[in-house]
Amino acid sequence: MSSLNEVVALGPRLRGDDDRAQFRMFRDYRWDDVACMPYKEDGAAPFKAISRQVLFAEQQLGCEMRYFEMAPGGYSTLERHEHMHAVMILRGHGQCLVGEEVRQVKPFDLVSIPAWTWHQFRATDGEAFGFLCMVNALRDKPQLPTEKDLEALKSHPAVAAFLST
Amino acid sequence: MSSLNEVVALGPRLRGDDDRAQFRMFRDYRWDDVACMPYKEDGAAPFKAISRQVLFAEQQLGCEMRYFEMAPGGYSTLERHEHMHAVMILRGHGQCLVGEEVRQVKPFDLVSIPAWTWHQFRATDGEAFGFLCMVNALRDKPQLPTEKDLEALKSHPAVAAFLST
Repeated sequence: MSSLNEVVALGPRLRGDDDRAQFRMFRDYRWDDVACMPYKEDGAAPFKAISRQVLFAEQQLGCEMRYFEMAPGGYSTLERHEHMHAVMILRGHGQCLVGEEVRQVKPFDLVSIPAWTWHQFRATDGEAFGFLCMVNALRDKPQLPTEKDLEALKSHPAVAAFLST
Repeated sequence: MSSLNEVVALGPRLRGDDDRAQFRMFRDYRWDDVACMPYKEDGAAPFKAISRQVLFAEQQLGCEMRYFEMAPGGYSTLERHEHMHAVMILRGHGQCLVGEEVRQVKPFDLVSIPAWTWHQFRATDGEAFGFLCMVNALRDKPQLPTEKDLEALKSHPAVAAFLST
């Protein structure tokens, strides 16, 4: 009886990250059992119209795979950090800044964002723009650009144009 | 002069996994700067008509992302291991066995393959069938089924039907 009571007391079994359903279906850029969350937990860093879904975060993987999606006109935070990003575009067309390079990207293109490299994604093409982003489970917090950093970035005409879209 | 000679002796600079181009374009399920390789290094394990492309394997990620693709009728090895697989279907329709469950899967569906769980992918739908597979960089070697394991698997009618396709 006591074990049954315990089960009742716990309510429906809660799934941890290491205890996912084995098959999770995709439908319209949402997945079974995956919450669609705000991009960041707080609004201290600038971003616009972007959501986050964590597809895999099992501890034994050593890394996580997230899906970020911007509505048309949306953008991720312009930032840099010690950890690298391994990105695959999944939905729509848009633009991506890595360091001083701006590129138009399309589904299944790959983007590597090295350590301490400024980067940002922008849904510049009037359509939803989404990408997979793989990161190490152990990672540092992003750094935002100072006014001086922004000035240096904007000295590159392509970067200035990108940042003002 | 000696440093120039050294450079000449080395030939074109070889890119390591940690030194990828930042943007790698996708075209017809191939990617810039990514070699299309045999599925496995040797033929000791059974498999058919399947290729492997390593999309990300930078040490700092802690994990790797590979793309496996089967031609129609192809299949991956039926195997199990300590490490888990985090899979996203990328191309076409096909079937997947995880443990004792066989499922039809389609692009962007997610499959989690837990530790020590028998699994296999099969291009059953007359089309190319490809998937992303994320794994920890440090992982054990797969184990093949014994005759007894196969017998136990085939005691499930759906698994028996899957294995005989």
